[in-house]
Amino acid sequence: MASESGKLWGGRFVGAVDPIMEKFNASIAYDRQLWEVDVQGSKAYSRGLEKAGLLTKAEMAQILQGLDKVAEEWAQGTFKLNPNDEDIHTANERRLKELIGETAGKLHTGRSRNDQVVTDLRLWMRRTCSTLSALLWELIRTMVDRAEAERDVLFPGYTHLQRAQPIRWSHWILSHAVALTRDSERLLEVQKRINVLPLGSGAIAGNPLGVDRELLRAELNFGAITLNSMDATSERDFVAEFLFWASLCMTHLSRMAEDLILYGTKEFGFVQLSDAYSTGSSLMPQKKNPDSLELIRSKAGRVFGREDKEAVFEVSDTMSAVLQVATGVISTLQIHRENMAQALSPDMLATDLAYYLVRKGMPFRQAHEASGKAVFMAETKGVALNQLSLQELQTISPLFSGDVSRVWDYGHSVEQYGALGGTARSSVDWQIGQVRALLRAQQA
Amino acid sequence: MASESGKLWGGRFVGAVDPIMEKFNASIAYDRQLWEVDVQGSKAYSRGLEKAGLLTKAEMAQILQGLDKVAEEWAQGTFKLNPNDEDIHTANERRLKELIGETAGKLHTGRSRNDQVVTDLRLWMRRTCSTLSALLWELIRTMVDRAEAERDVLFPGYTHLQRAQPIRWSHWILSHAVALTRDSERLLEVQKRINVLPLGSGAIAGNPLGVDRELLRAELNFGAITLNSMDATSERDFVAEFLFWASLCMTHLSRMAEDLILYGTKEFGFVQLSDAYSTGSSLMPQKKNPDSLELIRSKAGRVFGREDKEAVFEVSDTMSAVLQVATGVISTLQIHRENMAQALSPDMLATDLAYYLVRKGMPFRQAHEASGKAVFMAETKGVALNQLSLQELQTISPLFSGDVSRVWDYGHSVEQYGALGGTARSSVDWQIGQVRALLRAQQA
Amino acid sequence: MASESGKLWGGRFVGAVDPIMEKFNASIAYDRQLWEVDVQGSKAYSRGLEKAGLLTKAEMAQILQGLDKVAEEWAQGTFKLNPNDEDIHTANERRLKELIGETAGKLHTGRSRNDQVVTDLRLWMRRTCSTLSALLWELIRTMVDRAEAERDVLFPGYTHLQRAQPIRWSHWILSHAVALTRDSERLLEVQKRINVLPLGSGAIAGNPLGVDRELLRAELNFGAITLNSMDATSERDFVAEFLFWASLCMTHLSRMAEDLILYGTKEFGFVQLSDAYSTGSSLMPQKKNPDSLELIRSKAGRVFGREDKEAVFEVSDTMSAVLQVATGVISTLQIHRENMAQALSPDMLATDLAYYLVRKGMPFRQAHEASGKAVFMAETKGVALNQLSLQELQTISPLFSGDVSRVWDYGHSVEQYGALGGTARSSVDWQIGQVRALLRAQQA
Amino acid sequence: MASESGKLWGGRFVGAVDPIMEKFNASIAYDRQLWEVDVQGSKAYSRGLEKAGLLTKAEMAQILQGLDKVAEEWAQGTFKLNPNDEDIHTANERRLKELIGETAGKLHTGRSRNDQVVTDLRLWMRRTCSTLSALLWELIRTMVDRAEAERDVLFPGYTHLQRAQPIRWSHWILSHAVALTRDSERLLEVQKRINVLPLGSGAIAGNPLGVDRELLRAELNFGAITLNSMDATSERDFVAEFLFWASLCMTHLSRMAEDLILYGTKEFGFVQLSDAYSTGSSLMPQKKNPDSLELIRSKAGRVFGREDKEAVFEVSDTMSAVLQVATGVISTLQIHRENMAQALSPDMLATDLAYYLVRKGMPFRQAHEASGKAVFMAETKGVALNQLSLQELQTISPLFSGDVSRVWDYGHSVEQYGALGGTARSSVDWQIGQVRALLRAQQA
Repeated sequence: MASESGKLWGGRFVGAVDPIMEKFNASIAYDRQLWEVDVQGSKAYSRGLEKAGLLTKAEMAQILQGLDKVAEEWAQGTFKLNPNDEDIHTANERRLKELIGETAGKLHTGRSRNDQVVTDLRLWMRRTCSTLSALLWELIRTMVDRAEAERDVLFPGYTHLQRAQPIRWSHWILSHAVALTRDSERLLEVQKRINVLPLGSGAIAGNPLGVDRELLRAELNFGAITLNSMDATSERDFVAEFLFWASLCMTHLSRMAEDLILYGTKEFGFVQLSDAYSTGSSLMPQKKNPDSLELIRSKAGRVFGREDKEAVFEVSDTMSAVLQVATGVISTLQIHRENMAQALSPDMLATDLAYYLVRKGMPFRQAHEASGKAVFMAETKGVALNQLSLQELQTISPLFSGDVSRVWDYGHSVEQYGALGGTARSSVDWQIGQVRALLRAQQA
Repeated sequence: MASESGKLWGGRFVGAVDPIMEKFNASIAYDRQLWEVDVQGSKAYSRGLEKAGLLTKAEMAQILQGLDKVAEEWAQGTFKLNPNDEDIHTANERRLKELIGETAGKLHTGRSRNDQVVTDLRLWMRRTCSTLSALLWELIRTMVDRAEAERDVLFPGYTHLQRAQPIRWSHWILSHAVALTRDSERLLEVQKRINVLPLGSGAIAGNPLGVDRELLRAELNFGAITLNSMDATSERDFVAEFLFWASLCMTHLSRMAEDLILYGTKEFGFVQLSDAYSTGSSLMPQKKNPDSLELIRSKAGRVFGREDKEAVFEVSDTMSAVLQVATGVISTLQIHRENMAQALSPDMLATDLAYYLVRKGMPFRQAHEASGKAVFMAETKGVALNQLSLQELQTISPLFSGDVSRVWDYGHSVEQYGALGGTARSSVDWQIGQVRALLRAQQA
Repeated sequence: MASESGKLWGGRFVGAVDPIMEKFNASIAYDRQLWEVDVQGSKAYSRGLEKAGLLTKAEMAQILQGLDKVAEEWAQGTFKLNPNDEDIHTANERRLKELIGETAGKLHTGRSRNDQVVTDLRLWMRRTCSTLSALLWELIRTMVDRAEAERDVLFPGYTHLQRAQPIRWSHWILSHAVALTRDSERLLEVQKRINVLPLGSGAIAGNPLGVDRELLRAELNFGAITLNSMDATSERDFVAEFLFWASLCMTHLSRMAEDLILYGTKEFGFVQLSDAYSTGSSLMPQKKNPDSLELIRSKAGRVFGREDKEAVFEVSDTMSAVLQVATGVISTLQIHRENMAQALSPDMLATDLAYYLVRKGMPFRQAHEASGKAVFMAETKGVALNQLSLQELQTISPLFSGDVSRVWDYGHSVEQYGALGGTARSSVDWQIGQVRALLRAQQA
Repeated sequence: MASESGKLWGGRFVGAVDPIMEKFNASIAYDRQLWEVDVQGSKAYSRGLEKAGLLTKAEMAQILQGLDKVAEEWAQGTFKLNPNDEDIHTANERRLKELIGETAGKLHTGRSRNDQVVTDLRLWMRRTCSTLSALLWELIRTMVDRAEAERDVLFPGYTHLQRAQPIRWSHWILSHAVALTRDSERLLEVQKRINVLPLGSGAIAGNPLGVDRELLRAELNFGAITLNSMDATSERDFVAEFLFWASLCMTHLSRMAEDLILYGTKEFGFVQLSDAYSTGSSLMPQKKNPDSLELIRSKAGRVFGREDKEAVFEVSDTMSAVLQVATGVISTLQIHRENMAQALSPDMLATDLAYYLVRKGMPFRQAHEASGKAVFMAETKGVALNQLSLQELQTISPLFSGDVSRVWDYGHSVEQYGALGGTARSSVDWQIGQVRALLRAQQA
């Protein structure tokens, strides 16, 4: 094309191609890990070309062997990148040509770079999603196992960081495990939409050479084929969906980490992180910081708001590390049962006190007010709520009688919450069963 | 509780409750539209309480009648909000109490505000998703109808805003319609996860009063019930999912709008927006601006990055308006066939010229280079690509012969792209059929 | 212009202008509050027209009186909006015409809507920034006053939510006050860039009628005039800057709120929020939730990622409320000195123990290790760090001698940190002085 | 500290430290480039320790020499990282100890990792901001030079992508240059806030060893010192500010790129990108894509919403490349004057036609309507606006007379816009002068 004009009004010297521009444009640094799927896609496409009569059987065989050699070099670490290889696709094609000569030039007949890039990306993400699914399931399984083993430990449930009601420790674990099962379900949906073949869409108008896309689909084991060639090469919904999936999953892990950071403070004292997931301070000798949890929390922000290939690679790595660290943290965490028990205080049974009155026939709103008065009376007298005498309670409502003493039992309190999803032992068992069943169904 | 302390170190005067604080906290302004689902949820809950023996049949009947009266007042616009009604839920309860007295206080037995809020929100969003689905289907249907009617119009397909290959106008329409079918599919998935009953989860520990959550589910026609009470009242995944859905759908509409803005410029001249979707300039008398398209485009940014109830309301309104405007725009748009035809230029057939050589046996990479040389030769000579003589072409490759003249036919060019998803008439018809089948399946 | 075509391929019926489109486009609902600056801008512009000879003195007087009448109607709440008023600017012009007739049509000579909109917005934001500056200064002043009054209260400084070193309570207050002084500085810089006159830029090419922009600048008291008419009417840097300012300021307030929420838990027990800034639970009678702090924290997310006029209005309101609530919270907060004192534990002096050895000549890295051994020894023996005997310490290092007992004094510990910015009393006093000086300088 | 507990409930095997955790935590990969400022900061701190009596002069000399040796190794590429070096700071300290022995352990007396990290980051960013300022000035200068050289080229100004009014090409260039001067101003403000010394803040309570922070400030040439030690080590406002600066600057470059992409299409045909900033298509031989501009546009999204050290490094690199590519693009761009001239059409003078009537005494709103009627009449008759006869115009308004012919001159049109900031030659010259003066002032 037209020869290069020099600089007209100052600015930097400009050669054939501005070298900054080249660096700017090259993606080879981060898409190196696509080598395997790139070879896989090219092998399938050469089969498509053969069937369409654009390659002879001999040419196809030559290409397939050449591609296997390229793959071998990558696998053995002997593949050498040239400075001019701007991405993994040109690198592989360049090497193929060196290995088998001009026939290599036939491989790209009717296939655009976009065609190839998006096929490779879908193949790579399909595999990554499988890996992440397995890691997520392992985490959920670890949580459910732990929930089952520690069903009898009670501790305070918090809302607004204020002690609210006694709950089972397992109930807390399951609240996070259940959230993760939604992530697991969503990941399968994303995977379904990733698993659609774009190859055979050309640059924009489609493939004009009679390539059989159904053959390509079968070769690459995709679940369906894209409907429109323009959409196929340009859409990245599946990338946005994957990143959104990761951000939501990270939000869940981040919330769990935040709870555990708090539960591990000297002030709360409910759990102790394994040394394997803690670090010290370079200045303060007594410090033991919950770095693993803080990193999980901080990574949440990292996955938002990007939509490119680099983001996919980075987020995949992050998710993989985070899921494994979370599994390690949960499986090695020590809990301090005595601190948990001591943190339960009678004012957390104020709701139960209201329900006591409800069961005697008082409308809930009145019962709520009566219980609130009892809390205020106890505060004023400087005693615990369960230390108010029956006479004192009766000044608030004549419905109080001797059986009110049965309210002050944390074990009895949690056992009331027997409706599905509640913190009663039967309900916690039901949750464990439900989550296990979900896992089995998803893994099927 | 404890009496109020005055200000100690300056700052503003503080009364019983800082009035700024009250305004800050109140959500009544925007959750007004929840009145209907709030009544619906309360009616179901009162049935649950009756079955659990916490309401007599008579009390239940009284509450149901009272709630019907509340609904009637809202429907007729006679409901009067009090300044103290901090949200829709307290407003309805306050009014119920005025209408039926103390029995109203029994309605909230074992039900927390969070329980109620999240149930209402899910009911409301379930309905909204149905509405948006219908609007989205209407838009897709309009697009497919138009694609079918204008199948024979060719115009330039662009990549990087450069003319790339001739395509059918319908192919462009379908590329956007196909993207919208994914939004439609995703919306159904979101709806499935919205359609899960949280009611009966209490504040955190669950419901302690034997309320039958399966009855509540059936009453409110939910598809499933939440598994864990802590998760049920605190999780807002479905809100994040809905907002993400909206942002992705808006991205698609925004891209379509961007194309149409460009196609409607004087320089492109392919389409003309109906006056109903244009506005003028207060200063420049000749101007006719594509405001509808610009607004669609600008709204894309609005739905990102929020996760609250207000965002849901606002985004729902936006999506509803945008989908209707887009449908209106598409159904009234005029196209200028002659401009479209004139914009097709022979250099857009350079790929076809390469394929011509491929069909004569040349590897594609060489054919690409040969065709590039022809483009350069034509540019240098200042003629159109199809005006190069056979002799001139043969200086580039001896494979060129008389039949090369058949390359210079735009209709013939597009008909080559017959692989599924391409721009050939048969493939466009297939796409129309596929999208129609998808719509039928989703509406089932 | 061309008459309206009906719908061609289905979709909704389309009249003269699609009514959904109209609602979509109209901004009158939220820019109502611009009435005052809109009148102000128009008055200045009419003076400019008079000087340019485009209005006679009599016409100018007529317009000025008409605009005053418009303003009066707004101020008294008697201004009536028409359904066709699409924004505040058309509303005011329409009303002016009703009041003074055709002369009103001269007011917009050479002034585009963009010209007017951006001038109004800058005028409005300039005023808002002044208000917010004053509120921010009031908050900082309240914090500094409190820091001065409570200089002698010690409590644990935390890093990673683990107890780190004893610090003064005032040091914590000042750490947040100092962050807010940066916000205050930034707000002044934003204000400087807001305070630039765009009026006189027309639609895009400039003003062709000899309007004296310097006169307009002086009339409206702007600090400078914009340099380029295209940039002037389209740029919204100042909006993005204002929103970024708000988001950073909210981040600071959010972090302070997060600390206070934690310090207010039963487990920490350092502070107690005034009832004026707390709310109860509808279900649990004993609860008192730090809603003001949670709202401050949650508002942080609200101001990110938008760039429109609505965002400016909403964020201004939020900032105004948040700054006032924060001032109220700080000025009424009660602190529990005894809990603060009890939370100081000897292991927080492990750094001091290391410094003790440093002062005896040991390199810090060795001293850090020695102190770490002492912490481990105390943990192993189940005693507090300060209960190790001198003999025990000497097994770790012979440098320990009798004067080590002076390490175990929290007051002595904090007094060591006398370098500027540290937690020693002298340094805290210096900080108070510095922040006060900054405030005086900024208010100048 | 406490020995390691094994795994209790399954999950992955956990050794002394989970190796995934280690990788997760290590930042050495990206903070390698901090080596120089890390050495610089340590040298200053050792001088502070010597003055405080914590190092002898001999020890200080030993440390300074050791640090110089470390720097030399980095500079010559011989520095060897250990697998255990978790960040640049530990790597340098580890190496220093190898080089000079135990004295190295004294360097960190009273200095926390946070202290060191934030000091290094500020030093690094201060330098980076200087570099970016220089690149930005170079770009602005190139633009102003070009604007000056091509002052006499007219072309259409667009609003809403519709032709609006004739303007000078230089006016367009300056509209973008002026936006960049604001970025330049903001960068100086950010730099001022970066240029504040945090060193001497310790972990949280401050520095207890009498280190003279004023000496440190002078040694490292900072403009001021931080006020509060807790704030100093934790605040990252300057990072958020820098990223915001970059995002706003990128928005400006992105808008310019978007205009140029459009102006370079076949349909517009105003400019032609140098080959040095274009790339071809692997499939379509005729394509020449404006990749440089598309990359500039796409990078805009990359800098938003992150707030960590990695983001700073990545964004700095991006900005540096983008500014240089933009300078190259602008300095080598070719313009097609004839296409620009041809794109000017008489309807773009409709505003001038209205002004013609205004000058004859008609109120602008009526003149706007009259001119609109003329546009409609011309459209209806199928002629250009300037081909309406005087008689025809007079049917619209009797104020039209023979001198109306002078309206139809594009050169005359732009010369009207002589108010400051307009597109008249005098005003464009004024803009050039203003921007040059700004540059001079900023570089001072």
